[in-house]
Amino acid sequence: MAHIGNGTEYGLHCLLLLARPLAEPASSRDLAELQGISTSFLAKIFPKLERAGIVKASAGIRGGYQLARPAEQITVLDVVDAIEGPKPLFDCQQIRGGCTIFEGKPPAWMTRGVCGIHAVMLRAEKLMRDELARTTIRDLADGVASKAPPGFGMQIENWFADRVNVRSEARLAVVTGPRPRRKADDE
Amino acid sequence: MAHIGNGTEYGLHCLLLLARPLAEPASSRDLAELQGISTSFLAKIFPKLERAGIVKASAGIRGGYQLARPAEQITVLDVVDAIEGPKPLFDCQQIRGGCTIFEGKPPAWMTRGVCGIHAVMLRAEKLMRDELARTTIRDLADGVASKAPPGFGMQIENWFADRVNVRSEARLAVVTGPRPRRKADDE
Repeated sequence: MAHIGNGTEYGLHCLLLLARPLAEPASSRDLAELQGISTSFLAKIFPKLERAGIVKASAGIRGGYQLARPAEQITVLDVVDAIEGPKPLFDCQQIRGGCTIFEGKPPAWMTRGVCGIHAVMLRAEKLMRDELARTTIRDLADGVASKAPPGFGMQIENWFADRVNVRSEARLAVVTGPRPRRKADDE
Repeated sequence: MAHIGNGTEYGLHCLLLLARPLAEPASSRDLAELQGISTSFLAKIFPKLERAGIVKASAGIRGGYQLARPAEQITVLDVVDAIEGPKPLFDCQQIRGGCTIFEGKPPAWMTRGVCGIHAVMLRAEKLMRDELARTTIRDLADGVASKAPPGFGMQIENWFADRVNVRSEARLAVVTGPRPRRKADDE
């Protein structure tokens, strides 16, 4: 499995859709269905983004998610860390101290500082993380917008608005119940 | 689990021990026992290093592994690739083409070029890999040598030589069998 998994990929694509504020918050179900991805998987990702202060949730039939801060203040690294959690590139097992020649008492010269192998991995990880921190959700959204034809953003907005309206009307029908039978119906 | 796992860590530590050529090739069992790591796990790692042309094997009671090329020509990245295999940082699922608005026919503007999210991941991965390619087994071995007291290298060499000798003598005893009973023994 890749170090940065599908959860992060799905999360980033959703945040792209939220970068341009929608008329109403988007539900994770709608975000999943628009993109043809698993609704149950996405439902587990949004609470992680919420805990990290990347999105905020609102409840109710017209509730859903929106960005908790401007898209230019959310980096790809923020999203990776929120969804992947603490996941080092390399997890040093301190092999150097276990050399049998030391008979369980590794000398100070051997265990001083970071192991040379670990140090290389930490340098590589830092460069990787620095690069992920250089790009924001705004940058990514601008990249899509620069390729998209005029009106694509509005098309997306309308799709979400339609979904919210359909859901609200369906809920209203449940609350008010079916049309009552009238005497004329039996005639 | 970390992206770069224990197998690579064990492999790198072993290659460090082989950087200064030993009198005879080292068996993976001896390399494991010297370092207090799993012999069965290490036995699975060395064939990967051999297939990648990093070590070469020799058979027989005094056989084992040695570097297949000079330590300054083996980078940390070579070892990571040999042991981890093809393992991208991020495995793009092409989410962008699945948007339901496109009804299964994503337009050319959407699928042109690399996805912006994938592009960020590829840049981060390249920086990580470039850094891993900058350090060689020679650099790592020099780092240990610069900290170690005089005579440590020789201590390691002697440990391996003792093991080979003990094994050869044990094998000799098996081949020649127990000392034959002589008439005098019964007297």
